[in-house]
Amino acid sequence: MKVCILTIGNELLIGETQDTNSYWLCRQLASLGAEVLRVVLLPDIASEIASEILAARQRGSELLITTGGLGPTDDDLTLQAIAAALSLPCELNQQAAEMIENRQKDLLAAGLIDDTDMTPERLKMAKLPQGSLPLSNTVGVAPGVLLELSGFRLIALPGVPAEMQAIFSSLLPLLESWIPNGGFEVVDLWVGCPDESVLAPMLRQLAAEYPEVYAKSKARGYSSERKFNIKLHARGKPSVTRPLLASATDRLVELLTERGITLLSRTGFQY
Amino acid sequence: MKVCILTIGNELLIGETQDTNSYWLCRQLASLGAEVLRVVLLPDIASEIASEILAARQRGSELLITTGGLGPTDDDLTLQAIAAALSLPCELNQQAAEMIENRQKDLLAAGLIDDTDMTPERLKMAKLPQGSLPLSNTVGVAPGVLLELSGFRLIALPGVPAEMQAIFSSLLPLLESWIPNGGFEVVDLWVGCPDESVLAPMLRQLAAEYPEVYAKSKARGYSSERKFNIKLHARGKPSVTRPLLASATDRLVELLTERGITLLSRTGFQY
Repeated sequence: MKVCILTIGNELLIGETQDTNSYWLCRQLASLGAEVLRVVLLPDIASEIASEILAARQRGSELLITTGGLGPTDDDLTLQAIAAALSLPCELNQQAAEMIENRQKDLLAAGLIDDTDMTPERLKMAKLPQGSLPLSNTVGVAPGVLLELSGFRLIALPGVPAEMQAIFSSLLPLLESWIPNGGFEVVDLWVGCPDESVLAPMLRQLAAEYPEVYAKSKARGYSSERKFNIKLHARGKPSVTRPLLASATDRLVELLTERGITLLSRTGFQY
Repeated sequence: MKVCILTIGNELLIGETQDTNSYWLCRQLASLGAEVLRVVLLPDIASEIASEILAARQRGSELLITTGGLGPTDDDLTLQAIAAALSLPCELNQQAAEMIENRQKDLLAAGLIDDTDMTPERLKMAKLPQGSLPLSNTVGVAPGVLLELSGFRLIALPGVPAEMQAIFSSLLPLLESWIPNGGFEVVDLWVGCPDESVLAPMLRQLAAEYPEVYAKSKARGYSSERKFNIKLHARGKPSVTRPLLASATDRLVELLTERGITLLSRTGFQY
């Protein structure tokens, strides 16, 4: 399953807030066996968001995840942008309005807000593109949105990390059902080699022999430790990827040994 | 000056490495008075990088900054992608080759590498798009690249944060000369209000009265602190933006007070 991620908010592009959402999502999606094609950080401009949604779809993305722009203020424009991109009207979703009202009652009871009036700003969070399924936000107020179209799915999540993570986590069983042979295996090697350029020919050879395995040496500063990290990755069912990675790792260790490079450690793990 | 940032590397999209480079660059660029249009995290695929370079240029970006993909391994493809996007040949840059050789001599003298042979992998880092100015990397080895075309500039930086930051910092005087009336002023307010939706009408009113000022309430979890952060930003010369922001802030405080919302703190600062 090919995925694009859009993280939305001017605060990201002026370097006020660090986008941690896309990192968390990339890791989650990798562990599910999905392939993230790209991540785009966008400003609060509806036309920019809409055009990137269309571009992601044209690029072959089967799932688009957005974070940010679901809140009550005028610069929260994600829902309008989705509706515009997909030529859907935005309409009051009764289920979303109830979710918002119930969350506000909880917050009022906890003494965290002063009233539960459904002001235009609060109602705005319930105006969803036609056909949306609202996703309960148990941490904040603004519901997430799931939209399933032919060959294309869209999940809109809030920008506050705790809210985004809670809603995404509630979708894990659904996501797993979309990626039946998911999984992501990694083998982590440390080798006694001071310089990445020395490793390049061995990684090239490995890529030719094991095209399904992605091996990468991690660029890092030169240090007196004189060691480098190489990671081998494979996407898919563990019953397939685990023996494949074991074999590729054995072969790489052989190639390294031939060149006098020692293996310092070898650890296998799953995302 | 409108800027796009591309951060390049499969490791970003599988959630193995968090992209911290774009956050650091966004903050630096904001402080210079530049406007970051978007940030794109891309895989190590030359055609994807090249098409995004062209898209950034079409989008009105006057400066494009890339990080990553300058190293010696086969998946370091940024220079080839730049050359392809701009229809320039890649050729051995003698100055870049000398930079690499000199850095390797330093590293050998420090006992951090074993030889200074100009292997094909090391020479690869000196094959630059025609017309490039190599930028000395005093932390690592791979030089950065500056390319100035008509109406479009491109800076390619390494992905290792310390190397990226060192090269970018060496360019600050040049960047300042490109943005003569740069600067970025911020006023940071904390207000006694439990709910962002209550602030929306006041921010709307302020935006209508002060279109050059960007005011944003920061979405956050509901908490017993019952307070919210609002930031007002303006880009340009401090002699212009400082009085403008002071006036806009006074007006916002007035609007807040009318609605019974108290000002808890007010701090002005420059990025």
